[in-house]
Amino acid sequence: MSGSKRIYIHEVATRDGFQNEAQFVDTDAKIALIDRLSACGYAKIEITSFTSPKAIPALRDAEAVMHGIARHDRVVYTVLVPNIKGAERALSCGVDEVNLVMSVSESHNRTNLRMNREQSFAQLRDVISVVKQTNVAINVSLSTAMGCPMEGDIAQAEVLDWMQRFADLGVHGVTLCDTTGMAFPSQVGALCAAATKRFSTLDLTLHFHNTRGMALANTLAALDAGIDRFDASLGGLGGCPYAPGATGNVCTEELVHMLELDGYDTRVDLKALLSASALLPSLIGHDVPSQLLKSGQRLDLHAIPCVSSDGLPEQRAFAEKA
Amino acid sequence: MSGSKRIYIHEVATRDGFQNEAQFVDTDAKIALIDRLSACGYAKIEITSFTSPKAIPALRDAEAVMHGIARHDRVVYTVLVPNIKGAERALSCGVDEVNLVMSVSESHNRTNLRMNREQSFAQLRDVISVVKQTNVAINVSLSTAMGCPMEGDIAQAEVLDWMQRFADLGVHGVTLCDTTGMAFPSQVGALCAAATKRFSTLDLTLHFHNTRGMALANTLAALDAGIDRFDASLGGLGGCPYAPGATGNVCTEELVHMLELDGYDTRVDLKALLSASALLPSLIGHDVPSQLLKSGQRLDLHAIPCVSSDGLPEQRAFAEKA
Repeated sequence: MSGSKRIYIHEVATRDGFQNEAQFVDTDAKIALIDRLSACGYAKIEITSFTSPKAIPALRDAEAVMHGIARHDRVVYTVLVPNIKGAERALSCGVDEVNLVMSVSESHNRTNLRMNREQSFAQLRDVISVVKQTNVAINVSLSTAMGCPMEGDIAQAEVLDWMQRFADLGVHGVTLCDTTGMAFPSQVGALCAAATKRFSTLDLTLHFHNTRGMALANTLAALDAGIDRFDASLGGLGGCPYAPGATGNVCTEELVHMLELDGYDTRVDLKALLSASALLPSLIGHDVPSQLLKSGQRLDLHAIPCVSSDGLPEQRAFAEKA
Repeated sequence: MSGSKRIYIHEVATRDGFQNEAQFVDTDAKIALIDRLSACGYAKIEITSFTSPKAIPALRDAEAVMHGIARHDRVVYTVLVPNIKGAERALSCGVDEVNLVMSVSESHNRTNLRMNREQSFAQLRDVISVVKQTNVAINVSLSTAMGCPMEGDIAQAEVLDWMQRFADLGVHGVTLCDTTGMAFPSQVGALCAAATKRFSTLDLTLHFHNTRGMALANTLAALDAGIDRFDASLGGLGGCPYAPGATGNVCTEELVHMLELDGYDTRVDLKALLSASALLPSLIGHDVPSQLLKSGQRLDLHAIPCVSSDGLPEQRAFAEKA
């Protein structure tokens, strides 16, 4: 659609999704999936995480995956990096970007990273100084930016302060993560408006989880505030390992489906995306949260009547005959 | 929250939800559930459907349920009525409102109601003329108002024309139904803006399904266009019997959760709602789509860390220790 606003979609399923899976996805299967995704039109793909293989065995093949994929010029290939050692491993594979993580909430940072926030910041500052000697871009993902499952509300000023500290170190982008799906639309709108106003030169990305069903509603609020970059996970993979029933990251195909219907230009091939998403259950050994994969796109019409639930008594009788 | 905008929530689980369930919910259990819901603060509850017991055996106890419930002054008790016979049965039970249904799309109307739209309109006109001799309110639910699963897009003018025909007959309200979850936010915004502008004296309700994950996003768009009445289904029950994987109506507890966080006044007691929703699986014999029931409200904090999926390698190691 010419003239429509460009929205940048970042796929995180092979990192944020696979790291939560009990079943190891074979290296060849990861590479094949990423190669399919590279052809789908994403702006960015988060390939893997350069962390200790003992800590996240699901991603123990980070180097092999990075070396094995066929890279497309238009896709930024990013990886999660926790420390200097991870950064060196990532740089040796020629990544386009490193993605660093810490939490805005002290409790969550201690729980998740086993250090306090100042320790995390110092560690990430060291990583940034190493990576800045290269041409590799640097993004920082701020977890629990819209609520902490242990502390509750997070003050907007606190989020902006941490953004400022990283902006001052010269990072290229910051991702605001609704790590456990606590964000709600008016909060998202206010935070995004404040962030885009104050950090006009940073690439701002929003990272939503659908834990409480609000991921697409929050996306609308972020769009209204001028955000044009979104993380999303194929099939809706990801999420908290302690809430197995709750769905994970916002589902990429549902996000793209809504955005394209609303006239945005994601450059993502939704049909190709749905074909790729359909492969996930065989890779991970279970069904995925994606509803679009089950229902199809809104104009995938039915020849045989899909009988309404708003109907009259005859519907059941008819349905039984259909 | 004083001064915040009032939003009217209409519960449809015991009609739109239960009619799709294979397992019969005992009459006493229906009455007990509705009595619980009556105390939750709803503006309206759609109790049942006065249709042929052969066609919808799940609701064959319509009279017994209507006579059995304890009615609250502040709740409007409505029922679905397909024809004169249904209307007479409903009126004999002292309902507050009858809800009539037809589809905006010809194909869907024929499929669902086994007659063409003009036949449906004539039949509903007869019902309206009978009910208008009483003090009972009349609402018309227009199915497939945002898309037909067989015909595809529905022109906005077509929807407005059908609204006009019923407005001319003196109905009190019209519900625009996204029967199979085909609506998207910009479409909803445009339709609602046009409808509220043209029918300022009608009570307008929006009825969303979450088939493609957009129900809450569509709700935001409707709110922005001035809509203040929404149908919703406890636990997210309902939906098309031909797409068992797809979720059903927008989930009441998720709708109320979002609206209250955004500062709207629903008057609904969310805790009581979640307690009621938790009873559903035992009544219908299977899990419900509600994610909020699994995750809890956003400020239901965790003493034991709910480890982020945005985290570093240590999260798994820590998680295993936690």
